[in-house]
Amino acid sequence: MRKRSLGKDKYVLGIDYGTESGRVIAVRASDGRIESSVIISYPDGVIDERLPGGPKLEPDWALQNPRDYLTVLEKGVPKALKAAGIRAEDVIGLGTDFTASSPLPSKSDGTPLSFLPQFRKQPHAWVKLWKHHAAQPEANRINEIGRERDEDFIRIYGGKYSSEWFFSKLLQVADEAPAVYEAAERFIEAADWIVWELTGEEKRNTCTAGYKAMWVKGRGFPSPEFFRALHPSMENVIGTKVPDAYYPLGARAGGLTAEWAKKTGLRKGTPVSIGNVDAHVAVPACTVVEPGSLVMIMGTSICHMLLGTERQMVEGMCGTVEDGIVPGMWGFEAGQSAVGDIFAWFFENGVPAAIHQQARKERKPFLSVLENRAAALKPGESGLVALDWWNGNRSILVDVDLTGLLVGMTLATRAEEIYRALMEATAFGTRTIVEAFDCKGVKVEHLVACGGLPEKNRLLMQIYADVTGRDIRLADPLQTCSALGAAMHGAVAAGAAGGGYDTIVDAAKHMARVQKLAYKPRQEAHEIYNRLFKEYTTLHDYFGRGANDVMKRLKALKREMTSQ
Amino acid sequence: MRKRSLGKDKYVLGIDYGTESGRVIAVRASDGRIESSVIISYPDGVIDERLPGGPKLEPDWALQNPRDYLTVLEKGVPKALKAAGIRAEDVIGLGTDFTASSPLPSKSDGTPLSFLPQFRKQPHAWVKLWKHHAAQPEANRINEIGRERDEDFIRIYGGKYSSEWFFSKLLQVADEAPAVYEAAERFIEAADWIVWELTGEEKRNTCTAGYKAMWVKGRGFPSPEFFRALHPSMENVIGTKVPDAYYPLGARAGGLTAEWAKKTGLRKGTPVSIGNVDAHVAVPACTVVEPGSLVMIMGTSICHMLLGTERQMVEGMCGTVEDGIVPGMWGFEAGQSAVGDIFAWFFENGVPAAIHQQARKERKPFLSVLENRAAALKPGESGLVALDWWNGNRSILVDVDLTGLLVGMTLATRAEEIYRALMEATAFGTRTIVEAFDCKGVKVEHLVACGGLPEKNRLLMQIYADVTGRDIRLADPLQTCSALGAAMHGAVAAGAAGGGYDTIVDAAKHMARVQKLAYKPRQEAHEIYNRLFKEYTTLHDYFGRGANDVMKRLKALKREMTSQ
Repeated sequence: MRKRSLGKDKYVLGIDYGTESGRVIAVRASDGRIESSVIISYPDGVIDERLPGGPKLEPDWALQNPRDYLTVLEKGVPKALKAAGIRAEDVIGLGTDFTASSPLPSKSDGTPLSFLPQFRKQPHAWVKLWKHHAAQPEANRINEIGRERDEDFIRIYGGKYSSEWFFSKLLQVADEAPAVYEAAERFIEAADWIVWELTGEEKRNTCTAGYKAMWVKGRGFPSPEFFRALHPSMENVIGTKVPDAYYPLGARAGGLTAEWAKKTGLRKGTPVSIGNVDAHVAVPACTVVEPGSLVMIMGTSICHMLLGTERQMVEGMCGTVEDGIVPGMWGFEAGQSAVGDIFAWFFENGVPAAIHQQARKERKPFLSVLENRAAALKPGESGLVALDWWNGNRSILVDVDLTGLLVGMTLATRAEEIYRALMEATAFGTRTIVEAFDCKGVKVEHLVACGGLPEKNRLLMQIYADVTGRDIRLADPLQTCSALGAAMHGAVAAGAAGGGYDTIVDAAKHMARVQKLAYKPRQEAHEIYNRLFKEYTTLHDYFGRGANDVMKRLKALKREMTSQ
Repeated sequence: MRKRSLGKDKYVLGIDYGTESGRVIAVRASDGRIESSVIISYPDGVIDERLPGGPKLEPDWALQNPRDYLTVLEKGVPKALKAAGIRAEDVIGLGTDFTASSPLPSKSDGTPLSFLPQFRKQPHAWVKLWKHHAAQPEANRINEIGRERDEDFIRIYGGKYSSEWFFSKLLQVADEAPAVYEAAERFIEAADWIVWELTGEEKRNTCTAGYKAMWVKGRGFPSPEFFRALHPSMENVIGTKVPDAYYPLGARAGGLTAEWAKKTGLRKGTPVSIGNVDAHVAVPACTVVEPGSLVMIMGTSICHMLLGTERQMVEGMCGTVEDGIVPGMWGFEAGQSAVGDIFAWFFENGVPAAIHQQARKERKPFLSVLENRAAALKPGESGLVALDWWNGNRSILVDVDLTGLLVGMTLATRAEEIYRALMEATAFGTRTIVEAFDCKGVKVEHLVACGGLPEKNRLLMQIYADVTGRDIRLADPLQTCSALGAAMHGAVAAGAAGGGYDTIVDAAKHMARVQKLAYKPRQEAHEIYNRLFKEYTTLHDYFGRGANDVMKRLKALKREMTSQ
């Protein structure tokens, strides 16, 4: 236990609920210094094969046990406090963030249906994790009816409502498990459920409502007619299972309950902020509270977050939500569905024996051999261009059935050239998103990166700078920026009077920072990449906009052949 | 030495001059049984870096030493006779075949200029091997002037005269080495030079003249005006350095000279056939002397040879020559510039560690693991389609600047799926050629394969049958069919009266055969491949016919970047 000057410094806790685990960090409120960071794995993890003690799941299912979220609190908070040497009275606030959309059905007192004996073996009673993909038929129905009725949400979500989102999942419950649907007095994002649990207040956040659940500030949800068209039982879902009041990010949801004070060692009444989403909460933690800076959360995929001063329908957004990231601003979310995943695919499936041999000889990881070779190439030298659609295209085409493409191979093509072409392709994917913003007047002046990918991939980051022609700054910390963002929102829940800040803008000014290292575009490389990006765009439009739907036909044929 | 019933059986020798070595076989004239087969490597091999004892060569040069061709005779013939236990008096004829176009400059008595001390260190005095690619500027000039003047040869060669061919190479000599050009009393294919050497008769063959040197039966060569337009010194090249008399395949060029009788142990006067080309000579050795059967000589690349009863301008042929393969018929030649080469590229650059590990574990070659996995896939199951242009496209697009393409990758794509897609792509390439013939009414009823690739690649051959929807028979022998074809032409040079045959059709009837094994198309697979071939064709036309010249631009950019 480190020693502190007791009573002088104040702290906030940030709790980041990820896919496999939860992270609790303790942060000094005055300057954002991270005092401790604790990871608690979910005991049941991602439940995608068999319900614990229950039935086998169908393909594409992915559930979680809400009990695990509580475990993170019970174990993680005391550990984080202890590791940081912080006393409960010096913790002035607590913020959370969550994956989304990850909703669950509960009773009106917040008890998850999966906690009730009669529903324990019913998969539909559990949390449907964001990557639960079994509600595609429901998503299709929502889009079809939405388009027929010309509903607003179709435009807000770039033309398509995803199977990963709130109402697709709720509709699946209504379709497949009427008893669960009936018993569910609430259907709620885990992001909101955890805040309800901590404070006893069911106060839902505008972010998940806006990005995942068709809610529009000032206008609310689609009409009962729309919901009835989806499913007769859903006509009156709004105002019952799904309330119609939503609270801005950073607002104080309430104070910690006596029960949770006891379980965590924190003081009763410690301010808890409104729920938030892992990607969105990272934006102010990357110092971004104004338009002009595109935040890239770079990992297996990339989430792109940008602020704007007015509503704009930008092509292929995952969502455009007023107050959706920072109150007072429009929040834009875009994304690339595979980035780190493509590189991981290549490492596993495309690296030949010669590179492994050189690595053994030089006693280096093969990745470093591959990276060194790729770094020695000039832009354009590989003669290759790829389309980075190994997992479909999220923005700007919003099409999961697109696939990857590589063109330009000769008998002299080497693995490192392919690797570099894949990196470049993901950078072209980001540039496509940047240009989609640009052409609607939503400025992208520079980029701020966080997440796992930027840490070691200097070559990748330089390629992104060269391709986009923009500076890239790295968040500090890189990998715990969601947790830091959650803590910052906890500080806003506390307010200046409580030792925190009145706005997330103030919190960002004091608690967030970027690293000194910035990647700057090199003019010569940028010009070569302009030529390559033109090729990428021609291929992107040819294969992605219907001129040649070969990718879809190949995918359909593959399904046909594997289902035989 | 095996024992023979002396005096009863008659034999012919076939000498196949390849790229790295020459092969001499002794064959029983009555039934084509191969009695012995001897390979003699060329002492100087392919000369592509430095002239032996002379200067360094520029990039793209590839030369040979004509002395090496004589070494094959001196060493190979006695060895083949000895190994077969054949007496000189039982050898009734001798035939040769050669790579083409591989021309050399000589004096009027046949002495290669490279044998003369004053030219020994002058690269232009040596044989320019078929794969000498340094005459591209000359080929461009030939095509430009040919198109301007609307010369016949432009149509005959599918729209383009290659840098690999006779007059491109001669023009390069005229351009770059006027002294060599002046001293050259003859410019002659090695195929004809070796026959001249053996018989003392300068009698040139119609095959190389027709396929590589613009000669048309009954019309001869382009006019002196055309040659003057190419180069002032070339105005009167025809009738001087390049004679205007040409002799049909299988004709007797003459009898073996006393000198070569002594050096080889054969009898003086042994009939020697007119020169021939390695690919063309293989056709009757594959039993094909009639229209309807497409011969595929499958190795690093594929040569496709087909007979027809009338002249037809089929798109992208390497040549269409009357009497060019079998006297009395039109011979069509097409080709794919990389087939085995693409697989070799993949084995070296695309096979991941997991496959090598499995191979070590199972104590198998990694190729067999890869092949087994690929064979387990159904057509269409990979979700991939490729364009097989790793070394450009010979037929039907005749474009060396096209490159490879692979589409359909997902995060679940595995190396064996890519391998299978590459095999399928080369089969689609062959089908494209088959359909080009078909659409001009030149029938392709079934395929006959020879060469190195079909030997072990059962999966590949089945894919070709399924893709083309045609039976594939395998020549017997598979890998020495050029040498067998040369021997068969030796038997025709001998004539029936001399113990051989009067025509190549008769020779084929008795001496050539196919294996019992035939690959038959499977209807279900064929139907799936019809769908995939449609995709291939759409991509083929989009990338190959000017709609999107991205491949050329990438290649040009690559050249630009690597030359910096």
